[in-house]
Amino acid sequence: MARGVERVAIIGLGLIGSSIARAITERMPQVAVTGHDASEEVRGVAHRLGLCDRIADDPAAAVADADLVILAVPVGGMADAAAAIAPGLAAHAIISDVGSSKAGVAAALAKALPDHVIIPAHPVAGTENSGPAAGFATLFDGRWCILTPGADAPADAIAAVAKFWEALGAKVDVMDAAHHDMVLAVTSHLPHLIAYTIVGTASELEEVTESEVIKYSAGGFRDFTRIAASDPVMWRDVFLANKDAVLATLQRFNEDLTVLQQAIRRGDADKLEDWFTRTRAIRRSIIAEGQDDPAPDFGRKH
Amino acid sequence: MARGVERVAIIGLGLIGSSIARAITERMPQVAVTGHDASEEVRGVAHRLGLCDRIADDPAAAVADADLVILAVPVGGMADAAAAIAPGLAAHAIISDVGSSKAGVAAALAKALPDHVIIPAHPVAGTENSGPAAGFATLFDGRWCILTPGADAPADAIAAVAKFWEALGAKVDVMDAAHHDMVLAVTSHLPHLIAYTIVGTASELEEVTESEVIKYSAGGFRDFTRIAASDPVMWRDVFLANKDAVLATLQRFNEDLTVLQQAIRRGDADKLEDWFTRTRAIRRSIIAEGQDDPAPDFGRKH
Repeated sequence: MARGVERVAIIGLGLIGSSIARAITERMPQVAVTGHDASEEVRGVAHRLGLCDRIADDPAAAVADADLVILAVPVGGMADAAAAIAPGLAAHAIISDVGSSKAGVAAALAKALPDHVIIPAHPVAGTENSGPAAGFATLFDGRWCILTPGADAPADAIAAVAKFWEALGAKVDVMDAAHHDMVLAVTSHLPHLIAYTIVGTASELEEVTESEVIKYSAGGFRDFTRIAASDPVMWRDVFLANKDAVLATLQRFNEDLTVLQQAIRRGDADKLEDWFTRTRAIRRSIIAEGQDDPAPDFGRKH
Repeated sequence: MARGVERVAIIGLGLIGSSIARAITERMPQVAVTGHDASEEVRGVAHRLGLCDRIADDPAAAVADADLVILAVPVGGMADAAAAIAPGLAAHAIISDVGSSKAGVAAALAKALPDHVIIPAHPVAGTENSGPAAGFATLFDGRWCILTPGADAPADAIAAVAKFWEALGAKVDVMDAAHHDMVLAVTSHLPHLIAYTIVGTASELEEVTESEVIKYSAGGFRDFTRIAASDPVMWRDVFLANKDAVLATLQRFNEDLTVLQQAIRRGDADKLEDWFTRTRAIRRSIIAEGQDDPAPDFGRKH
């Protein structure tokens, strides 16, 4: 008994929400999309860009009659967004989201919408840009979307959300929310924290000017500035929502950094070379799996 | 009294050496290039690729009659490379290099070649790939090449090396070797150390499989794997050669990381948001300066 998704509502029209809207328009033209954003300015941009079939000023009105509602707001705003749509939800509506941490979001949504089917989701995709103009229809192509349904989630609702993401170009995995939060702490949250840290460090040294940091950034530093340019509010919320897993992986990182620091101080050439040889293999696997561009330097123009 | 550079010898035909050879061939066809690499295999590949006008099996023979000799070997191999070319050097030859750390290299070259003019150089450019087939003629376009001549270096020799790098497409700066080593510790060496660390950390966690790390790497982790795929021997040598500056900047990074770690543990939302907002500006400056691609996600294909 497959559930049909004919009407989708997207709450939050930033990079991810607007990319979903564009991808639906391009790939599922038979599906009606209504969008809403709490910001009047963002709604105006979405309107001008023709992002959805309809832009609603009111969140409850936006979700009326929707089969699938996707909350695409920072994870700290999920509870409020859920409360705001509650009065307008159809009884059969599936509620999903795109948050980068899942256990906390799932609990917030279950509390705000106790009578609805909730299928939390996380498309592992994005760019460093934000806002409704930054989205594009192919953002999810070949990327993974992870669903973290609760133990009592109906199988047909899980299947409907999975089918929806596959239609957007994504590959779908299903896992436990707590495991998701540990995996993403490693593959996404810790890398962002480290990037934010080093970019801050480099811009505040006395010995080296900011102008020098910028000029000579092609030595490696510029790679870190991309994810350190990601949306500040979104990432503030991720670190607060996934605190335990982030702090646990950070501790492991710190241990490893101390080992390498000691190897440098002691001049332990073999340890350094061994370590650097091991890490090289990981990138080859990522490229072989289609999760990064095989072109050198990410395909940057030279 | 400008010195003419009509014959160039390149010792070491990896990514950088082979890129110099290609760029000379394309942009200075009047300049004769002789190449040498200590590896017979690399010499064979260079030969098949037609990288130089001549590939010499013997380093001293390679530099005979050269006006400019560029040592493009790992910084730990500079002293041996200098000793190997010494018997063949013309009296008027300028010796330069492309090492990523400069004070130690300058001292090693001065010791090995006390009677020659030495103009150390560092083109701040590269990719994660290595070897003679990885080079390309446009690698240095718009990138900075930093010269660190000693106080007694002749002005005409400095000018000749500067002109050479500008002809290859680079912009040239001149600075003190010690300052170079501090600047590059921040913009290149620390980023590589951090990337090598986190890629090692992620691949050795018990809670998360390597397969999961690879699958979900588009969340940010994959950005770090690029520079963690850089040449292990080259980077081993850089950390050993620039130990003091690397350890000093690492200490500053560790302080900042502790501050952010505490902000996460305490739930200090304002501190996190403030920090993440500051770092966003740096990337805009790097793009405005032409030091990175303005396209989202480094211009990766989506």
